[in-house]
Amino acid sequence: MTIMKKTALPLSRVYGLLEPGPVVLVTTIRKGRPNVMTMSWHTMLEFEPPLVACVISNRNYTFALLRDTKECVINIPTADLAKKVVGCGNTSGAKTDKFKTFHLTAGIAAQVNPPLIEECYANLECRVIDTQMVTRYCLFVIQVVKAWIDPAVKDPRTLHHRGKGNFMIAGETIKLRSRMK
Amino acid sequence: MTIMKKTALPLSRVYGLLEPGPVVLVTTIRKGRPNVMTMSWHTMLEFEPPLVACVISNRNYTFALLRDTKECVINIPTADLAKKVVGCGNTSGAKTDKFKTFHLTAGIAAQVNPPLIEECYANLECRVIDTQMVTRYCLFVIQVVKAWIDPAVKDPRTLHHRGKGNFMIAGETIKLRSRMK
Repeated sequence: MTIMKKTALPLSRVYGLLEPGPVVLVTTIRKGRPNVMTMSWHTMLEFEPPLVACVISNRNYTFALLRDTKECVINIPTADLAKKVVGCGNTSGAKTDKFKTFHLTAGIAAQVNPPLIEECYANLECRVIDTQMVTRYCLFVIQVVKAWIDPAVKDPRTLHHRGKGNFMIAGETIKLRSRMK
Repeated sequence: MTIMKKTALPLSRVYGLLEPGPVVLVTTIRKGRPNVMTMSWHTMLEFEPPLVACVISNRNYTFALLRDTKECVINIPTADLAKKVVGCGNTSGAKTDKFKTFHLTAGIAAQVNPPLIEECYANLECRVIDTQMVTRYCLFVIQVVKAWIDPAVKDPRTLHHRGKGNFMIAGETIKLRSRMK
């Protein structure tokens, strides 16, 4: 797998990465042991500072890690990583070292403890800022504090889950005259 | 534009429509006057009954309509409707009858007052069930109470906003051996 060469992305542009609904890989860490989970249930909440709401089931190993450490990285994979993405979704961090099992490269983040996944074309370093919806909906509000992107990737072939292992791959991009942000 | 021929979709399958992150058209109605807005900030919250969290800015005409009437329909458009989608995003329901301006066909819903948009391949009739995050995040929790789909549409060419009028169109679908729902 290619390790991407990344530069910092202005935080005001983060929404353009998550708004299209890609499957993401969420990394956390505790006691020097990093973990990865596959996630599709997220939405932007605010442009800048970028706030994201994401649902992490309390049946997932990541749930307690994120609740306790309050830090994660959202890594955005492309279609070449599809098998690893599904592998991370089919296994539990309670039993598996997913970085090792799926040959993922951990990179050092600038502002948080969890590692970046170097094979992903974008990485968003995040802190949990609001847990009031966690008990009822497993919904965490997180703030992106630092963003990285490989500027060489123009039309990323992101993965979008349609359920039961069916993944839509991002197709062509069209430009329309929009006043939308 | 084609008016789709739809059948009821089991509520347990709704998540597969919204999880990939499509741009949607949200319809509301008050005093017999329907409105449409374009929305990209939404996520599934629960499989069944299907719960959705969606962000509707309080600068939008739809905000007060949804808060007050507590009903909407989420209509999912495909790429052939791109110009209408952007048109609905560039105009305000305070000044414009969008159904008339953009030649959209209003259909009668089964369980809520707002109309379906017949040109969309799927329609989700929804009720607001939780407004506790509306003040802080403009985040509404809504429940899908009835779902419609055109079963002839297999790989819908949904639109996914990448910011500033750039729309990714859904590409090919791949099937991977996943234990994910």
